[in-house]
Amino acid sequence: MEQTFREKWRHIIFGTDTPAGRLFDQLLILLILASVCSVMLDSVPRIHNRYAVELYIAEWFFTIAFTIEYFFRIYISETPLRYARSFYGIVDIISILPTYLSLLFPGVNYLLIIRLLRALRIFRVLKLMEYIGEARILMEALHNARRKIMVFLYAVTVLTMVFGSLMYMVEGEANGFTSIPKSVYWAIVTITTVGYGDISPQTPLGQALASFVMLTGYAIIAIPTGIVTAELAMISKKENVTSAIIECPNCHKDYHAADAKFCDNCGTPLT
Amino acid sequence: MEQTFREKWRHIIFGTDTPAGRLFDQLLILLILASVCSVMLDSVPRIHNRYAVELYIAEWFFTIAFTIEYFFRIYISETPLRYARSFYGIVDIISILPTYLSLLFPGVNYLLIIRLLRALRIFRVLKLMEYIGEARILMEALHNARRKIMVFLYAVTVLTMVFGSLMYMVEGEANGFTSIPKSVYWAIVTITTVGYGDISPQTPLGQALASFVMLTGYAIIAIPTGIVTAELAMISKKENVTSAIIECPNCHKDYHAADAKFCDNCGTPLT
Amino acid sequence: MEQTFREKWRHIIFGTDTPAGRLFDQLLILLILASVCSVMLDSVPRIHNRYAVELYIAEWFFTIAFTIEYFFRIYISETPLRYARSFYGIVDIISILPTYLSLLFPGVNYLLIIRLLRALRIFRVLKLMEYIGEARILMEALHNARRKIMVFLYAVTVLTMVFGSLMYMVEGEANGFTSIPKSVYWAIVTITTVGYGDISPQTPLGQALASFVMLTGYAIIAIPTGIVTAELAMISKKENVTSAIIECPNCHKDYHAADAKFCDNCGTPLT
Amino acid sequence: MEQTFREKWRHIIFGTDTPAGRLFDQLLILLILASVCSVMLDSVPRIHNRYAVELYIAEWFFTIAFTIEYFFRIYISETPLRYARSFYGIVDIISILPTYLSLLFPGVNYLLIIRLLRALRIFRVLKLMEYIGEARILMEALHNARRKIMVFLYAVTVLTMVFGSLMYMVEGEANGFTSIPKSVYWAIVTITTVGYGDISPQTPLGQALASFVMLTGYAIIAIPTGIVTAELAMISKKENVTSAIIECPNCHKDYHAADAKFCDNCGTPLT
Repeated sequence: MEQTFREKWRHIIFGTDTPAGRLFDQLLILLILASVCSVMLDSVPRIHNRYAVELYIAEWFFTIAFTIEYFFRIYISETPLRYARSFYGIVDIISILPTYLSLLFPGVNYLLIIRLLRALRIFRVLKLMEYIGEARILMEALHNARRKIMVFLYAVTVLTMVFGSLMYMVEGEANGFTSIPKSVYWAIVTITTVGYGDISPQTPLGQALASFVMLTGYAIIAIPTGIVTAELAMISKKENVTSAIIECPNCHKDYHAADAKFCDNCGTPLT
Repeated sequence: MEQTFREKWRHIIFGTDTPAGRLFDQLLILLILASVCSVMLDSVPRIHNRYAVELYIAEWFFTIAFTIEYFFRIYISETPLRYARSFYGIVDIISILPTYLSLLFPGVNYLLIIRLLRALRIFRVLKLMEYIGEARILMEALHNARRKIMVFLYAVTVLTMVFGSLMYMVEGEANGFTSIPKSVYWAIVTITTVGYGDISPQTPLGQALASFVMLTGYAIIAIPTGIVTAELAMISKKENVTSAIIECPNCHKDYHAADAKFCDNCGTPLT
Repeated sequence: MEQTFREKWRHIIFGTDTPAGRLFDQLLILLILASVCSVMLDSVPRIHNRYAVELYIAEWFFTIAFTIEYFFRIYISETPLRYARSFYGIVDIISILPTYLSLLFPGVNYLLIIRLLRALRIFRVLKLMEYIGEARILMEALHNARRKIMVFLYAVTVLTMVFGSLMYMVEGEANGFTSIPKSVYWAIVTITTVGYGDISPQTPLGQALASFVMLTGYAIIAIPTGIVTAELAMISKKENVTSAIIECPNCHKDYHAADAKFCDNCGTPLT
Repeated sequence: MEQTFREKWRHIIFGTDTPAGRLFDQLLILLILASVCSVMLDSVPRIHNRYAVELYIAEWFFTIAFTIEYFFRIYISETPLRYARSFYGIVDIISILPTYLSLLFPGVNYLLIIRLLRALRIFRVLKLMEYIGEARILMEALHNARRKIMVFLYAVTVLTMVFGSLMYMVEGEANGFTSIPKSVYWAIVTITTVGYGDISPQTPLGQALASFVMLTGYAIIAIPTGIVTAELAMISKKENVTSAIIECPNCHKDYHAADAKFCDNCGTPLT
């Protein structure tokens, strides 16, 4: 009997194929979004001054609700350990810890924003499976490109450190380049084309060097783009080709347009 | 007789294949541009102070003219409802509403700038059909890429909220990060490499974190580019293949792979 | 006799295949660069105060030298009109006009910087023909993409005007958005990710709208890149293919790897 | 006997295939990173004031250690001259010179940051050979694209000089455009979309011109990206083709087009 109770709830909480399961997930996502909003609003001074108590209660309400949900998930799960170690299991627990930790370390509760990751379930609930497929392609492209991107980031790091040191020597502390780490920060701000302008070169030599850094950044911003694009194009092509492997029974040419009815090499009908 | 009057004007106003029709569209576009200019000029204090009355009259003149045109279009149209619900029909009505609404809600009339969309007819008038074709390709690429772009924007949203919250905790209100929403705004300004500099990190730890955010933004800016490029390349390739126009003498399927020897629809040899 | 004199100089000035011709072009490029430098230096207050007379003399020296050269080119040219209407002919004359015009309109002489275009001859002198080939490919890609880029720029223009008007209504004059043209300027600064920060939104609603503009700009910056990349890839592929049209005398397969000695379809030797 | 000593150390210092060799390289990289950190920390005023002596000693300690290592490498190398002229040999010596030079020219020692290049050995130590392969592909793409990038940078240089001169004439010294070189600096800051905002146009005409510069920069940022992407895609494709490894049984040419039926070098049928 108890078994039946656990099984029933397992379907509702982990599944999305019953009306009750979908309703549960929809409510959960609403709760998550409400909780993230309340954390963000609590940080706005004007709102905090007026609604501090209400928001404090709301935070504990959400945290306790999510804590109960977490332990209930473990209780009803067939493989509690596997759930606890899964991506969602880990996200679920670090989504409740900050509130408890904030009793010891005030201010930590802003980390509750991480609850947003729980909302990733939305893709599962709304049956947005195509989106998961697309995300998978993006992840695969980034995964294939990871080494090239690491090499690129290493090169950018060395460049910014060298440029930062040069600017520190050229501009000096009088113009805001007060230390090498700060100059490296400037170089990163510049080479990524962010350009806050909180530190900017004042001497002609410094401006000439900065121009060189900017043109360099402008030229090498092409590299990560090129890397990712080439990977994406490769994956798209592979998917296109694999989606049409139809071997001709006569000449054995092994791929054709997906809607081909006859081999376009020898005219034999394809099955 | 009245039927003939409507038909005649239908040709002039909706068509572009008669001299009168082209002239009408050209005058219309001039009126639209003049109307947009007058709205923009009216917002410049120096000009507003001197020509407030003239510009107010001009605004009502353009609005009444466009209103008459709108109802005339409905009157002469064979299918008035279809026109009213079409893209141009909707643009035409929201191009006149702001002036009337500004009697109730002052300031709304700046929305008249939306009249620019009416000027899209320019592509039709100038027979810039190739441009419409090119725009269609761009739209198709964006349409094909819409899911990848949504996934990307979701990831960017989560990233900016997490980075924003971290910066709020690291930098605090003293350095301009007065609330989490404002810190998220800063994170968006940074990750998109806009970098106004109205808020910028002051502490070493904040600058280190900001550097990380910038390099992240620099690396992931590659993703939307890669997505769109891959889509455009795919469309171009597809068009290239279809442009190998070889009509099958039997089934009249009119495009095949450039090296096809037999129709891949019915197996008839291609010449 | 005089004919011989003109022919001899024609070879020296228009040609680069004799030592004297190369020497002439090298001297010319040195003069051009020196002239551009002197214009730039003249604009620096500290240098202008000290060397105003010397730089004024230098400017007239360069201008008179280039004027003599221009008329000498016309004199020795076989087809003076064709030279005068050619790209270099036009660049050559607008490189000397500003100095004369500055007698009437002071300050126009800074346009002398246009002389830089004369230095394009450097590619011809240094036999950097491959560079011209590469430049041609870039120009061809931009030429093929011109319609897509025009459509894109039209869309960006409409977007910035609409966003600019909205920000003018949301932020108002108190926060620096003093007119719609200025707000449109802000929108362009933002959507292109330049982000000077001379005008930036102050209200929460304005910052939310600005965030949306930035993400839009971030997403659509992908479009021109995608356009140009797809064109470049297409041209590269075409060149690769066309560079290897070798028809097989037996099976008539008409392109092969550039270094193929035998048809890879039937094994017949290729000539 | 001494030969054996040199050989043994040659294995340890130049090789990475023995435990001692790996340990040596790991220690070396730690020393390099510690040395770079101490240079960076020394430039921070607060740290310099407190630990000036300690950091000065550390700098000399690292320099003397690296000097000994350098001469020891030359002593044990079989081909000392080749080592001294190699990439690593040159990096190794310019990694120790700044400290000695700082005795003559104070401040030069910040160039010690160049020691970071020594840390490139990390790829060799950690057997990250794939990374070296990826770096090679990136270098090859950049190498193939070098001419197109040079043409592009030349075009950007001319554009920024012309736009800078125009802005100098339009805005003038009163608005921060104090000289043409400074205006060119502004144009570079703008066209690369960095946008510090230390100089920004104030007049309506200047802002209109700046908008044009920004849109230009926005459109042409596509070019280097397109160049690099097309090259990377080309290399990937070539590698894909070469990965169709089919060895010819006759001439042993070991890669062919994936669908080749006969060796395209000697005409022998491929199995």
